[in-house]
Amino acid sequence: MTASQIVYAIKSGAHTAESVMNDFLERIDSRDTEVEAFIEFDPERALSRARAADKMAEKGPLHGVPYAIKDIIDTADLPTAWGSPIYAGFQPRRNASCVELLNRAGAVPLGKTITTEFAYFFPGPTRNPHGLDHTPGGSSSGSAAAVADGMAAFSLGSQTAASLTRPAAYCGVFGYKSTQGSLDSSGVMSLSSSLDSLGLMARSVDDLMLTLNVLHALPIEELMEPALQTARIGFFRGPHWQEGSLDMREACELAANTLSGKGIIVEDVDCPDEMIKLTEHHKTVMAFEVARARIFEYSQHHNQISPAFAELVETGLGITRTAYETALSARDQAGQALVSIFQKYDTLMTPAAPSSAPEGIAATGDPLFSRMWSLLRSPSVTIPWGNDKANMPLAFQLIGRVGQDQRLLAHAHDIASKLDIEIQLPLT
Amino acid sequence: MTASQIVYAIKSGAHTAESVMNDFLERIDSRDTEVEAFIEFDPERALSRARAADKMAEKGPLHGVPYAIKDIIDTADLPTAWGSPIYAGFQPRRNASCVELLNRAGAVPLGKTITTEFAYFFPGPTRNPHGLDHTPGGSSSGSAAAVADGMAAFSLGSQTAASLTRPAAYCGVFGYKSTQGSLDSSGVMSLSSSLDSLGLMARSVDDLMLTLNVLHALPIEELMEPALQTARIGFFRGPHWQEGSLDMREACELAANTLSGKGIIVEDVDCPDEMIKLTEHHKTVMAFEVARARIFEYSQHHNQISPAFAELVETGLGITRTAYETALSARDQAGQALVSIFQKYDTLMTPAAPSSAPEGIAATGDPLFSRMWSLLRSPSVTIPWGNDKANMPLAFQLIGRVGQDQRLLAHAHDIASKLDIEIQLPLT
Repeated sequence: MTASQIVYAIKSGAHTAESVMNDFLERIDSRDTEVEAFIEFDPERALSRARAADKMAEKGPLHGVPYAIKDIIDTADLPTAWGSPIYAGFQPRRNASCVELLNRAGAVPLGKTITTEFAYFFPGPTRNPHGLDHTPGGSSSGSAAAVADGMAAFSLGSQTAASLTRPAAYCGVFGYKSTQGSLDSSGVMSLSSSLDSLGLMARSVDDLMLTLNVLHALPIEELMEPALQTARIGFFRGPHWQEGSLDMREACELAANTLSGKGIIVEDVDCPDEMIKLTEHHKTVMAFEVARARIFEYSQHHNQISPAFAELVETGLGITRTAYETALSARDQAGQALVSIFQKYDTLMTPAAPSSAPEGIAATGDPLFSRMWSLLRSPSVTIPWGNDKANMPLAFQLIGRVGQDQRLLAHAHDIASKLDIEIQLPLT
Repeated sequence: MTASQIVYAIKSGAHTAESVMNDFLERIDSRDTEVEAFIEFDPERALSRARAADKMAEKGPLHGVPYAIKDIIDTADLPTAWGSPIYAGFQPRRNASCVELLNRAGAVPLGKTITTEFAYFFPGPTRNPHGLDHTPGGSSSGSAAAVADGMAAFSLGSQTAASLTRPAAYCGVFGYKSTQGSLDSSGVMSLSSSLDSLGLMARSVDDLMLTLNVLHALPIEELMEPALQTARIGFFRGPHWQEGSLDMREACELAANTLSGKGIIVEDVDCPDEMIKLTEHHKTVMAFEVARARIFEYSQHHNQISPAFAELVETGLGITRTAYETALSARDQAGQALVSIFQKYDTLMTPAAPSSAPEGIAATGDPLFSRMWSLLRSPSVTIPWGNDKANMPLAFQLIGRVGQDQRLLAHAHDIASKLDIEIQLPLT
């Protein structure tokens, strides 16, 4: 069941929060020894929270919905370790604002999901539910795997390079990355302040919309409605198209043609010159900012960080402020070019990752197709779209105007329903 | 001694880090029972750190300089309580990045300084060293008082409305508020994500420049140099000029005339229409964002927050996203108007506060003259400038281009030296 279906089932009396929770706990019990999506998980606490929800007179918009939380997000009753041995078992004193807002709306936290070290590249043990010898992607590895496997109705994730889009694509779930800076990030680990963006993974676009309303703490009169004019879609192959796999490119072309066949405007958009080098500029900004954000761990716990992370910090410390500011200026210029494109199109369709999930769990795949959008602060929605020959999920992403997240989700809702997308549980 | 003088004295062998620290500890011992700048203070630890610095072969750019840290900034070896009983005695596991960068450069932390509750309005017990029955201003109350009284060579502070400029002005020290978002804020409490800015208080502009180099983690080839062309100054009385005290207005006029008499270009600048209502827009943005950033404390510790803070959260929860985005758009438009002004001027001179520090410590004064600059994300330097009839400090502030903080400091250095400003210890 999706989050929206759970809310309806409980409100209608067909289920209780407790019975829903029991179903999810059973699923976790039967599957998570293999998938390893969770790092902190307390079934007793989750169940007692669900029972408490059943006793509440007022039912919030996410009443009784079990959800999972990426382990870079503070929780007052579960440890938060940032994927690092330095903080193993560390118990924060507060909930991050996003967690508190979800809980106030009646959602019930199941536990914390595995992230790569400091939400960068060094992976945890999580496996892809659709193929246990494949990576789930990272850094929001556990959040994607938990939703894909039906162990959580939705989950909180985050993105600095491709940390939400890529795992959502690899695991075949819907992903939403917010406009950078548009959601409060109090209590969320910072990695790169110009890039870090909170986001969600879920089993339907409806669920993303419902949950975003809660994270925005919107008054009722402002709640997002899916009804909207059909989007004019720009098909943006982008500067890295030829680096994508044939499967991925064919899937994107098929989606474009299918939508076009249903009478929707889908037009090719060339990559403006200003946007060609954004991937490199993203790397500069990220290394520069990470070096400053995680200077404490680098200086004081050097023997507990991975060589890859230490190298990132050292790269960042070697970047001059002039080079950093040049990269940010290039972003601003590219942002202007993007504004021009959005005068003609409502959303851009572009690959979500270079391929389906690669084999092996020692690496989390390539962030190539998302770095530029992260740098541009753009909101995105990942749309799962079929499988490759090995039966691993494929996906594309929709990019929206900066700050127009609700509009983007409304368009994504329309596009996903025109494509008849329904997420299936993994074959096991 | 200023920080720069301390560094020189230790490098030249005239002093040791230990002897410098002993002087500061004596000053704290004799004065802080009256001033109450510090909430956490560990003289033994400070002294042993200074001794350790003396033993280090390599001497950093802030070697042996004792400094103070606003208590919304995490420290791994001193509790961090955010000015709230909710977090009294809370011991973080890490240093904020700004603290770690200063320590790596050889600076020696003295302790944590008193802040208002969550860096908003509800005050602590700190008194103004220049008049113990006057407020030191807030929220960086202890950071300003400690530097003004010679209990710390410099201090870390922050600003969301006027939390650095106002206490610097009231206490008669130099203040620097960074361009919002330009310094890493990992480990610093967030209050309002579009507004929060780190900053510094010190006894000279040289010290602000030296310390900012460290916070930027600049490579040697990029270090800021004070030498620069003389600034063209725009005298910006702004929309609230008539709400300032006669003393304050006369002080600003005198500064403008004095600089003009020295052959510097100082021209009146009218307030563009786009900037007239920024103070109101600032209130909207701040309430909206605070309500989301501190929703956990509001929901879970309601009986431990002040009525004023609860009211701010409730105001913020009642603001629609449309109203919030309207305020941000107004900021962007005003920012464009400001860019035009900066085509003609290098810096704007404008009041730092409506008056000198008011009597009484039950309130921290009016943020009126800084809200608009905080909303615009502008960097500012507070310049202490004489005293009023009651012998309390007066000040003006210099506003710089967004992102051009080093340039602003270089101009401030020149302006302060042309005005022959030297900070005196309070008469006691």
